[in-house]
Amino acid sequence: MNVGKLHHAAVAVPSLAEAIPFYTSTLGMRAGEPHELRDQGVRAVFVESGGARLELIEPIDSTSGVARFLAERGRATLHHVCYEVADLDAALRELAGRGVELADREPVAGLAGRVAFLHPRSAGGVLIELLERAPATGST
Amino acid sequence: MNVGKLHHAAVAVPSLAEAIPFYTSTLGMRAGEPHELRDQGVRAVFVESGGARLELIEPIDSTSGVARFLAERGRATLHHVCYEVADLDAALRELAGRGVELADREPVAGLAGRVAFLHPRSAGGVLIELLERAPATGST
Repeated sequence: MNVGKLHHAAVAVPSLAEAIPFYTSTLGMRAGEPHELRDQGVRAVFVESGGARLELIEPIDSTSGVARFLAERGRATLHHVCYEVADLDAALRELAGRGVELADREPVAGLAGRVAFLHPRSAGGVLIELLERAPATGST
Repeated sequence: MNVGKLHHAAVAVPSLAEAIPFYTSTLGMRAGEPHELRDQGVRAVFVESGGARLELIEPIDSTSGVARFLAERGRATLHHVCYEVADLDAALRELAGRGVELADREPVAGLAGRVAFLHPRSAGGVLIELLERAPATGST
């Protein structure tokens, strides 16, 4: 398989409301609309500049993976990187054939389409999200 | 100021040689040539796919920030994100005026140009690198 574009890097934060002003006021990025991703137990928002996109994720469920991740780190920190793939199901089949372990059993709903996470222990220590973009989100 | 493109996300790894095959063989990315960045006490290499660029960084000096970061985490993990800026010195002056703290006093040499790191405690918990690309590296 070949991963495509780096769609975003993601930062786990205790509070979107407290995190957003640094990205908008200090770095001059634009914040989109926050959305709840119930499958992942988070509220998430994209902040963007010319070609750069960061996802800020705030846990809304204390049992979610992101809540545990934040509790372990004790502060906001980088959480994952997300690459686009053309066909998520095909990518997951190929990776499973190579012994790569998924963090979730099935793809879930992400901010920009269907996503699946590779477990860091199968992916060089990094939580990697693969994204098959929803057609409605356009071509950028 | 306005940050530009997300130039790369970076992963601190104990060994480039052990880390690279996951990105090339499993994810289908291309690895460039590793270079020593003595100012930062690391050897670094870019791995790229269509529009995605990751920097893998291996400490070559046990007193470097990256060596300490890896020792604390105990395994490979996401280290920083890097945004392009048009004028690094102007960006740093503006950020200093807003009370943002640099991790280094002065810009240093990075893989793709002059860089400076913002301290995570001034930057929402994330180590942020700002890059003024060297003219010779082209426009992509």
